[in-house]
Amino acid sequence: MSASIAAHPDRLLPADPGTRAIARSLLALVEDLPIVSPHGHVDAAVLADNTPFPDPTELLISPDHYVTRLLHANGVDLSDLRVGRGKDADPREAWRIFCRHWDLFDGTASGYWLRSEFVNVLGVDDSRIDEEHADELYDRLQALVEDPGFRPRQLFERFGIEVLATTDDPLDDLAAHARLAADETFAGRVLPTFRPDAYVKFHGAGFAEKAQRLVDTAGDGAAGYEGYLRALANRRQHFIAHGAVSADHGTLTARALRMDPAEAARLFEKGLRGEATAAEADAFEANMTYQFARMAVEDGLVMTLHPGVFRNHSPESFARYGADTGHDIPFAMEYTRALQPLLADFGTAKDFHLVLFTIDETVFSREIAPLAGFYPSVFVGAPWWFIDEPDAMLRFRSAVTGTAGFSRSSGFIDDTRAFCSIPARHDASRRTEASFLARLVAEHRITEDRAVEIIVDVVDTAPRRAFKL
Amino acid sequence: MSASIAAHPDRLLPADPGTRAIARSLLALVEDLPIVSPHGHVDAAVLADNTPFPDPTELLISPDHYVTRLLHANGVDLSDLRVGRGKDADPREAWRIFCRHWDLFDGTASGYWLRSEFVNVLGVDDSRIDEEHADELYDRLQALVEDPGFRPRQLFERFGIEVLATTDDPLDDLAAHARLAADETFAGRVLPTFRPDAYVKFHGAGFAEKAQRLVDTAGDGAAGYEGYLRALANRRQHFIAHGAVSADHGTLTARALRMDPAEAARLFEKGLRGEATAAEADAFEANMTYQFARMAVEDGLVMTLHPGVFRNHSPESFARYGADTGHDIPFAMEYTRALQPLLADFGTAKDFHLVLFTIDETVFSREIAPLAGFYPSVFVGAPWWFIDEPDAMLRFRSAVTGTAGFSRSSGFIDDTRAFCSIPARHDASRRTEASFLARLVAEHRITEDRAVEIIVDVVDTAPRRAFKL
Amino acid sequence: MSASIAAHPDRLLPADPGTRAIARSLLALVEDLPIVSPHGHVDAAVLADNTPFPDPTELLISPDHYVTRLLHANGVDLSDLRVGRGKDADPREAWRIFCRHWDLFDGTASGYWLRSEFVNVLGVDDSRIDEEHADELYDRLQALVEDPGFRPRQLFERFGIEVLATTDDPLDDLAAHARLAADETFAGRVLPTFRPDAYVKFHGAGFAEKAQRLVDTAGDGAAGYEGYLRALANRRQHFIAHGAVSADHGTLTARALRMDPAEAARLFEKGLRGEATAAEADAFEANMTYQFARMAVEDGLVMTLHPGVFRNHSPESFARYGADTGHDIPFAMEYTRALQPLLADFGTAKDFHLVLFTIDETVFSREIAPLAGFYPSVFVGAPWWFIDEPDAMLRFRSAVTGTAGFSRSSGFIDDTRAFCSIPARHDASRRTEASFLARLVAEHRITEDRAVEIIVDVVDTAPRRAFKL
Repeated sequence: MSASIAAHPDRLLPADPGTRAIARSLLALVEDLPIVSPHGHVDAAVLADNTPFPDPTELLISPDHYVTRLLHANGVDLSDLRVGRGKDADPREAWRIFCRHWDLFDGTASGYWLRSEFVNVLGVDDSRIDEEHADELYDRLQALVEDPGFRPRQLFERFGIEVLATTDDPLDDLAAHARLAADETFAGRVLPTFRPDAYVKFHGAGFAEKAQRLVDTAGDGAAGYEGYLRALANRRQHFIAHGAVSADHGTLTARALRMDPAEAARLFEKGLRGEATAAEADAFEANMTYQFARMAVEDGLVMTLHPGVFRNHSPESFARYGADTGHDIPFAMEYTRALQPLLADFGTAKDFHLVLFTIDETVFSREIAPLAGFYPSVFVGAPWWFIDEPDAMLRFRSAVTGTAGFSRSSGFIDDTRAFCSIPARHDASRRTEASFLARLVAEHRITEDRAVEIIVDVVDTAPRRAFKL
Repeated sequence: MSASIAAHPDRLLPADPGTRAIARSLLALVEDLPIVSPHGHVDAAVLADNTPFPDPTELLISPDHYVTRLLHANGVDLSDLRVGRGKDADPREAWRIFCRHWDLFDGTASGYWLRSEFVNVLGVDDSRIDEEHADELYDRLQALVEDPGFRPRQLFERFGIEVLATTDDPLDDLAAHARLAADETFAGRVLPTFRPDAYVKFHGAGFAEKAQRLVDTAGDGAAGYEGYLRALANRRQHFIAHGAVSADHGTLTARALRMDPAEAARLFEKGLRGEATAAEADAFEANMTYQFARMAVEDGLVMTLHPGVFRNHSPESFARYGADTGHDIPFAMEYTRALQPLLADFGTAKDFHLVLFTIDETVFSREIAPLAGFYPSVFVGAPWWFIDEPDAMLRFRSAVTGTAGFSRSSGFIDDTRAFCSIPARHDASRRTEASFLARLVAEHRITEDRAVEIIVDVVDTAPRRAFKL
Repeated sequence: MSASIAAHPDRLLPADPGTRAIARSLLALVEDLPIVSPHGHVDAAVLADNTPFPDPTELLISPDHYVTRLLHANGVDLSDLRVGRGKDADPREAWRIFCRHWDLFDGTASGYWLRSEFVNVLGVDDSRIDEEHADELYDRLQALVEDPGFRPRQLFERFGIEVLATTDDPLDDLAAHARLAADETFAGRVLPTFRPDAYVKFHGAGFAEKAQRLVDTAGDGAAGYEGYLRALANRRQHFIAHGAVSADHGTLTARALRMDPAEAARLFEKGLRGEATAAEADAFEANMTYQFARMAVEDGLVMTLHPGVFRNHSPESFARYGADTGHDIPFAMEYTRALQPLLADFGTAKDFHLVLFTIDETVFSREIAPLAGFYPSVFVGAPWWFIDEPDAMLRFRSAVTGTAGFSRSSGFIDDTRAFCSIPARHDASRRTEASFLARLVAEHRITEDRAVEIIVDVVDTAPRRAFKL
């Protein structure tokens, strides 16, 4: 077991011996700090109920579209992995398929996380993940997930998680969060996050029904666009009352539009009637990005924005398996012009926090670092989704630091629904931060004393600062 | 001679001693593997006839627009290099000009290949490539090209080429390929590649005449768009019968359009009459990208796509020297939205292979790796043309591996008309792959055992897998 | 003091010991070469009058929007830093604020330059830049700026500046330049640069009044567009007579348009009347980019182009502090198609020099290196503004060298209004060039002999070649 690369103390650290020695000493300062996770997709009910994980396939494979997509690319049918609606396949057979294809993950971010989970969380010998050992491994992990010590809450504690944010529907009653907060036996902070996308996109599934229910439920009796805005503001208050610190927006583009209220109201009605054009849907979404910034200035919720993804790229796979099944594909993004109306009005507003995420790496040095290096509201979001991996994280730091330094970072976000991967993800991030800083020290660009302060700042203080924790 | 950097065993390997040692041992596993070249521009007739190279200038300079373009940028007239139609200049004088400017190539990909050719293929002392030694060198190389041991077939064998694909006009009779295949004295595989660009672009030179000839020759008697589609399918069959494994498409953009057949037929007629607008020409090309994917699903030819180049940027140079004379300039590309209609219909089609090339590096991490990490049909094309050089190849691997791993690569393509550069190009690629993998091993991100497997896979298996060889 | 990283002989050099040793020896060849600065924003009058710097805050903080913007991002009011029109704040108080926030600059380009200025120019102990020592430091620097040995001319000589270009309004009489040229006690070359942006952008502040004045003053009596073109040509001659070698263009995009003169004249009149649309303003600017290229072909001034910046992004800050106060934000650029009409007509014109700058790094490998690797007129502009920092400079060299080698570089430009930062900026550039070349030597990609020649070429010869010095 000690021979596994997942347990090697120098994993992900730079090869140059002098730089590695510096990285090692920096890493030591943050390796055991508590995990602060201000953005992710774990289900609060799982923690509230301390639901056991049903089986190894459900624990590691089926819900993780990072994993299933690469298997799919290599010829595996998603049904056979129990993805989305394909729950009739045998979990053990899915596990065998995964083990047979384990080598595909070499070099990928998911491969790093999985190997780390196997070795450091599950106690598996990672030299024996293959077809031959698939059943033996399955049985062993099945026994583990049935162990009361392997329940979500026990792992939460073992992983050293201090704060974990979930992502929630605006009409969620947040009962699971309330139960957790009231539970004296549970010390962690589990915070809801307001995610209104489904109530903003005219052409999303069930928009009209959802938006109408929102107005009816929380609009203070007002109808139409006015009730809609009021309802959103009210639900944000409900989230704040349950500990929320941020609202999250997965928009198509970064565009924000200062729209005439009458025009917005007119579009909203067209949207409800299913009569809006694509351009009108985009304009309304841009209007709402502006409106959500306005609300954030008023109520203090941090605003996180992560545009630039073509959702459900494969209609066939969407029809068979539903959303979030591995075929959301990024495209080129623009922030400078898109956000100008929003930043013109709110960029210097007191206590407004706007975290800009991107999967399009080109905007880091070109747009996000320059914006965050001027506007006190703008924070540089950590590399996210496809670029949440060591090389891309190093490119990110290299791209933004010359302009914005270290003070404008959001801190790492794991953004995951794969609970057991949380420690591995934070570990990879911390090692990468240590690697980057060690290089700057080795090149005499920052002092070692300052590097010691900075690594604690970027790992521990930054997410608390950006997310008002 | 042994002092030349072109003969240094560690050339292109990383400087860090530990990483270099790993790279060296990985390189040793693939250094002498046969060359598989599934995409290039060597003329099959040259091999069929075993035509001698006429002189050093024709061997190394005039046909290689990588070389002549940088000389041109530094003030040399293309006519003086016997480029395109400028064949009246003295080849010896062209050679002198090249030698005088040899230093310009330091640091460039072409410089690496040329130096490697000089030292490792031509036996030249590369410390004496300068104006003073130009004539002596010319005489020596002239003697060499007249040597029967230096004919194309002898070099083919000496270079260890197993497979070499050419690029051919759809109406080419492929007689040279047939002769080579029938020739028992020639063991190599020389495969044609179907390249229909000239029959698709309304505003390309001679479109109407070419397209009409295609319909008349191979349309099974059908006229118009119907005959055109049939003719293309028929000619693909002709290519397949002569060993072709792929069809290559140099489109303006990556756009694919599912067009109504009647509308396509209408546009085709306008194109033939020379009455189509630029937008109509683009739409028809996008329609044909979709149609070629459909044909590829039917007949099994691998589809390679390399959009994003502004051809013949300098009208003056085009008028004087013709196409492919060094002023094709890349521009920004988009694949995610452009290819969606095609991938929606064929992305998961059985045995469909779509290799996506790009010169716009930004799409590697943002679009191509995510696409290839989901669709079983999509392969990540190796860095091509301007970015086929060591630093860009390392950036490429760094950009795609975190998302797509190693299994979705096309493998290296040399894409060259410079026959003597083929070994140098594959050598550079293999050294770069070894360098990248060595870093992952040094950083404990993959095991050395797996690196040993992966380097053989990416160098040797990947092109066979992607191109169905 | 000797412990400062700003005085470390290996600062910015690569960590690998072997590569560092090569870099050190390359650096030694250029470290003490004179400074050639062909593009910047120092005021010629300051040198002509040898005006003392008024106080430490004016010396290092207030005029440097690189510095003030990052303080602003961290909550400091620009007025408190005496930015733009905010001159009523106490300079000592501004200094205290800066010292309190000094740590923010770690890792930034500005931080490197400032630290270098403190240690190497001002003799400050950089371990004592903090709130506690702010007043002591202020007093010490106040004494220094009052020292006759610390006047601009004395620093000019001490910094080893051989050539310094300023940036000037077309109607500037260039009296300060004339005085400097006539002054036998001053050996440096201080050259004006023709910067006509304000006379080209219809919607810039005061366009109509400026353009009319230009026509009236220098139009040879001709009116309208004809007088305007003549006046610009005449003023260029005035600049040439005062030593100018280049004209600098900060356009919105890179678009150049070959416009019908009658149409251009019509637009010009609309622009004067304040009636032009945004599209018309853009078209006229594109027409003028073409016209300025034509003039450059005629009169020999080097043309520098640096598009792609959204100026005055924050209207509130613009209203309070004016232009150049830290909220100019880059956006994505395109050169290949935008410049085609200009390059079609002038790309191979004798002695035409067009230096293409960018802040959008994506165009280096994709567009600028391919253009500069073909057109004898096109030079690759050094990384500029936000990307003028070590990591980005290395990315730049990595991006362009494989295609264009070293011969097509503009050489470093410091582009600064912060006089004391000039040596630090050139030092950072030279160290980065040494680092890049050392890696190529260590990887056996260029010989050490050639690296010795190339580093002198890129540092010293390149700016003289590109800027005709």
